[in-house]
Amino acid sequence: MNQRETLKINDKGHLEIGGADAEELVKQFGTPLYVMDKAYIGQMCITLTSALKKEYGSGLISYASKAFCCKEIYRIIEDYGMGADVVSGGELYTAKESGFPMDKITFHGNNKSFTELTEAVLCGVQHIVIDSLGEAEDLEEICAANGTVQNVLIRVNPGVEAHTHHFIQTAKQDSKFGFSLTDGSAEDIINSVIKKPHLKLCGLHCHIGSQIFEIKSFCIAVEKMTDFYKKISDELGISFSVLNLGGGFGIHYAEGDPILKLSDYYDFVKTICDKLKTCLKEKGLEKPYLILEPGRSVVGEAGVTLYTAGRIKEIKGIKNYVAIDGGMFDNPRFALYQARYTVAAAAKMLLKPVKKYTIAGKCCESGDIIAEDCMLPEIEERDIIAVFSTGAYNYSMASNYNRNPVPPVVFAENGKAYYAVKPQTYKDIARNDV
Amino acid sequence: MNQRETLKINDKGHLEIGGADAEELVKQFGTPLYVMDKAYIGQMCITLTSALKKEYGSGLISYASKAFCCKEIYRIIEDYGMGADVVSGGELYTAKESGFPMDKITFHGNNKSFTELTEAVLCGVQHIVIDSLGEAEDLEEICAANGTVQNVLIRVNPGVEAHTHHFIQTAKQDSKFGFSLTDGSAEDIINSVIKKPHLKLCGLHCHIGSQIFEIKSFCIAVEKMTDFYKKISDELGISFSVLNLGGGFGIHYAEGDPILKLSDYYDFVKTICDKLKTCLKEKGLEKPYLILEPGRSVVGEAGVTLYTAGRIKEIKGIKNYVAIDGGMFDNPRFALYQARYTVAAAAKMLLKPVKKYTIAGKCCESGDIIAEDCMLPEIEERDIIAVFSTGAYNYSMASNYNRNPVPPVVFAENGKAYYAVKPQTYKDIARNDV
Repeated sequence: MNQRETLKINDKGHLEIGGADAEELVKQFGTPLYVMDKAYIGQMCITLTSALKKEYGSGLISYASKAFCCKEIYRIIEDYGMGADVVSGGELYTAKESGFPMDKITFHGNNKSFTELTEAVLCGVQHIVIDSLGEAEDLEEICAANGTVQNVLIRVNPGVEAHTHHFIQTAKQDSKFGFSLTDGSAEDIINSVIKKPHLKLCGLHCHIGSQIFEIKSFCIAVEKMTDFYKKISDELGISFSVLNLGGGFGIHYAEGDPILKLSDYYDFVKTICDKLKTCLKEKGLEKPYLILEPGRSVVGEAGVTLYTAGRIKEIKGIKNYVAIDGGMFDNPRFALYQARYTVAAAAKMLLKPVKKYTIAGKCCESGDIIAEDCMLPEIEERDIIAVFSTGAYNYSMASNYNRNPVPPVVFAENGKAYYAVKPQTYKDIARNDV
Repeated sequence: MNQRETLKINDKGHLEIGGADAEELVKQFGTPLYVMDKAYIGQMCITLTSALKKEYGSGLISYASKAFCCKEIYRIIEDYGMGADVVSGGELYTAKESGFPMDKITFHGNNKSFTELTEAVLCGVQHIVIDSLGEAEDLEEICAANGTVQNVLIRVNPGVEAHTHHFIQTAKQDSKFGFSLTDGSAEDIINSVIKKPHLKLCGLHCHIGSQIFEIKSFCIAVEKMTDFYKKISDELGISFSVLNLGGGFGIHYAEGDPILKLSDYYDFVKTICDKLKTCLKEKGLEKPYLILEPGRSVVGEAGVTLYTAGRIKEIKGIKNYVAIDGGMFDNPRFALYQARYTVAAAAKMLLKPVKKYTIAGKCCESGDIIAEDCMLPEIEERDIIAVFSTGAYNYSMASNYNRNPVPPVVFAENGKAYYAVKPQTYKDIARNDV
């Protein structure tokens, strides 16, 4: 738990999110419940956008919707003047329905369908990021048929792969995404795209990884990308006006992860901007419009999931299980990645941790675990269990496994909370059953 | 691919499922598409129910809904006189809405909510399987308030854990489910439950694992369970009238897995029944009503997912990727368990496999893979890609990750197919967004 004014322990010794007492939230909305600290999202948006503006100038912080997608989040990031990246027709639809400006949308994906490409063109998205030659050909056909010219970027692999505290540089990348900068395939696709009259190639996109704390990896990516921009300028006479460096800033999940302050995220952006400005100067390149695509860092730490403790099972000498009313259907990240989380008893925040618990879900599957080895006060049935940093890749990955309903999402601010996503009913789940 | 009359290669060299050409199915319903071979489900139902009837007599094959749950599957298993086990209020709701007889429902779960227990009692389910003391207490309260007596079983851990070709016997089990037979905790809960006037304790339930081929593991479970029944009879004078041995029969996914015929499943049931009869005789126990709960084996091999090949990316010396229009949102089992699948090009079934492909999904995540190292003919864009044995734990685990719609499910029989679950729309996905 990364304490702050809008995520803290109140006078009652309860967890308070966005000024709202967790116990009151549970009374009002029930559990399981995704709670988003709206002010923190705003602070992250301001931090990232102001850093880009002050330290670089021309560019856009484009929120990676896949981390957490619903209409309300698009309305919030629009308020901060941000863009959004979408990766499917479904995300594009949601953004559009929320009234989000389409000229701030970047459309990504390794296998966009013809229908999705058509939808994106008709919506007038800012950039479509081309991931294959076939896609460029489909897109040319769609734009020609609609009499439009589409701004595009090309996804490339700069040969840097980063995750948490490590990064590696590779000559050849094994990726289902994009084109290698080192084997000639990036030049080939550039040469194809620039010949297409209905595509306007504005620049390149790269994405080096996720949950990254080692900012040096971004600097290496900047070096490689600007080297390549220089090469393309020298050899093909093409001057790109846009550079999209993707996302990947890390967040605090559990012990061992750095605890980042807003100023640290500011510095992340500043470091990237400084490095880019240096590289541009050295290489005599014009300043491109810079796009950064944070997702997890904007919403991840804003989210707390509240559960009610159910059955408690203490197997002597083995393990103490606390079963919650959620599980892998609302948070599959332990099952998928053995992801670690910080857990607390939301109404016992000041009590001493005395026992190690495993937090188990209610799905009929022994792998349905949310977190292991959590030191907590003595847990009783009906205690509120809080799992932190669940704002990203929880609601967006939720399923109806075991026909459990997807929990609602509320945004909390100044002590009040409102639904961003309403509770799913049994009827909703079976809606398409014949 | 486990070839049979209703899953074969037709004269055109195309895959045929339930008599329907895969190419025609794709023309009619699009992709991604879950196709269920309805006749095979029927054959499995007949095989399992007839084996239990002939080889044992009194009992019930109870389909484990969590493998694949929708209204249509309840209608089908009802036609074969089977029962169903459900693990949530959502599954119970679906069964009820389909008109399934509630007196053939077993209700499972390590952390059923008070609401779910109430729903189950009011529906009049056949058995509720008690997983904790707290649950027994809640259930007594609910039944007392409603003036009913509920038949219950108790979930126990017999100390056998089985998976695929291995099984282990353990004295102490690390499980979020049930009570150990060896440390006195099973006796304790039995003593508690029999004192509750609104609960009628009918017997015990165990579940030893999943995807099991080693039938001996079931025989050991039968020994341990009957030993315990004998002990309870001798020490407490309680004669149980029901024994529920759970599920776990394996199916063929990929090379290395046994290919089982219907007669093999018959023999599985026969072996269990024979062993049980022997043990009952040896121990002088009365014949209990026997419940078996197959899920995966009833629907798993009946299912084939059809995709359209999209972008193909050959990275020389590394890997050949075929991107499909589905991915971890319709089949998360590779991402979750590194599960293996058999893959084919549905309209190129007679062409020689010439190249190794990795089948990648369309989600913006490098871990979004469906299968690796698939030897296939040369794949081109728009080829139909078939993934076999996807009938279990695919649709039921599907999510809207990346806001991709959940694909529809069709049942194919005698060359015709119909929707069991209609396609999800973008509007459906955003339905609860405020």
